[in-house]
Amino acid sequence: MLKKKNYIEVCFSPLLFDIIDDKSAVVVIVDILRATSAICTAFENGVNKLIPVETVEEAKSFKEKGYLVAAERDGIVKDFADFGNSPYNFTREKIEGKDIVYSTTNGTQTIQKAKDFYKVVIGAFLNIDSLVDWLIKENHNVVILCAGWKGRFNIEDSLFAGALSIKLLENKNFYTVCDSAYAAIELWKNAQNDLSNFIEKAAQRHRLKKNKLDDVIPFCFTSGYTKIIPQLSDEYLLDSRKLNDIDCF
Amino acid sequence: MLKKKNYIEVCFSPLLFDIIDDKSAVVVIVDILRATSAICTAFENGVNKLIPVETVEEAKSFKEKGYLVAAERDGIVKDFADFGNSPYNFTREKIEGKDIVYSTTNGTQTIQKAKDFYKVVIGAFLNIDSLVDWLIKENHNVVILCAGWKGRFNIEDSLFAGALSIKLLENKNFYTVCDSAYAAIELWKNAQNDLSNFIEKAAQRHRLKKNKLDDVIPFCFTSGYTKIIPQLSDEYLLDSRKLNDIDCF
Repeated sequence: MLKKKNYIEVCFSPLLFDIIDDKSAVVVIVDILRATSAICTAFENGVNKLIPVETVEEAKSFKEKGYLVAAERDGIVKDFADFGNSPYNFTREKIEGKDIVYSTTNGTQTIQKAKDFYKVVIGAFLNIDSLVDWLIKENHNVVILCAGWKGRFNIEDSLFAGALSIKLLENKNFYTVCDSAYAAIELWKNAQNDLSNFIEKAAQRHRLKKNKLDDVIPFCFTSGYTKIIPQLSDEYLLDSRKLNDIDCF
Repeated sequence: MLKKKNYIEVCFSPLLFDIIDDKSAVVVIVDILRATSAICTAFENGVNKLIPVETVEEAKSFKEKGYLVAAERDGIVKDFADFGNSPYNFTREKIEGKDIVYSTTNGTQTIQKAKDFYKVVIGAFLNIDSLVDWLIKENHNVVILCAGWKGRFNIEDSLFAGALSIKLLENKNFYTVCDSAYAAIELWKNAQNDLSNFIEKAAQRHRLKKNKLDDVIPFCFTSGYTKIIPQLSDEYLLDSRKLNDIDCF
């Protein structure tokens, strides 16, 4: 019997995620500015595992236990934390071989929401090409879950959802009839040839600029930076290639 | 002192509406296929008042009390109801001077959500030009609340949100920095010159076609059909022009 094609669904906000009941799907978590871009950077620079936690309090209690902690709210590093949410924080010298606890405004809370699904992975422009190959091999339905901003739709995550949807639809095993996916594709088509101008529409671009944190934006829209797909395993994010070998950690 | 400009916010789903805390805004409810298009048609054809109710059970109990009732779920007329959700149901012969109870899959439930806001009005392409004039006169912040489909984002309501945002932004008293508004505007720009093709992307277009209910789509995207702005007053929708004269009803 022929396997049915895999469905692509785009979810523009964690507040819309509870509607999605197909637990057999792979969920791709997206928070382009900046959590999932930072997570991809951390893995490329050799982090051992990331422990996503929802609240600042949890992050603080891990810090008190001696963990390295990345924690920010509204783009600002919490005073007890070792790192904020900029991909530039996660240099090889600081993080290679380490375990890091990670809590951000939108991204890590979104990861928790998807725990019951078949697999949960981290998506960013930085790993988009490898992610497409990995999703094609997985051969499952895909939900692209945008972290948004405090529950709201945002432009940068939607652009990624559009870019990823287009790439997956080039493979004949994927299809969509999801209005959100079509809308994200339209946005990406309008944006892709003049991204730096288009991203001026994004409120997050202006929040980052106000705090002088917007230097990372061009990097966060760069493809092909890493081949690693960070994947949720129980409580941790790990390099998906190592997931069959967890005992070694 | 100069009055501050009025902010435009677009909300892509009733599930995202609880985030919006500016109760001083006018809320424009949008359910293009088909509830708000049908409501505008009903007022143009002389309905006295519409009583939106959330559940089929409420609609049924009004029917038992002798009211005319419009009730549908998933596009299909409930067996006890006098009308479904097609604008073509609301002919002058059937409804002029009448009160009608109205319950639909997405639209009427969305109206209930907005009750606490400054004013709640019904938007559709059918009344978009008068709506723009009315909103400019109101001189308040505007929230465009898309009914979507069972909590999900949909294309047709987003297209209207984009069209309305563009028209309001032509007036210097309005501005936005809302990512959803910008995204809706991009969608509308892509769609406006070839609407009949673009709307093929909308899942609702295919739901209606399956039930042979898609004949209303071109009508629902027609501007200038009516000058009436249906407005929520307590439990009823009334022609906004009559709202200072409620005792006459």
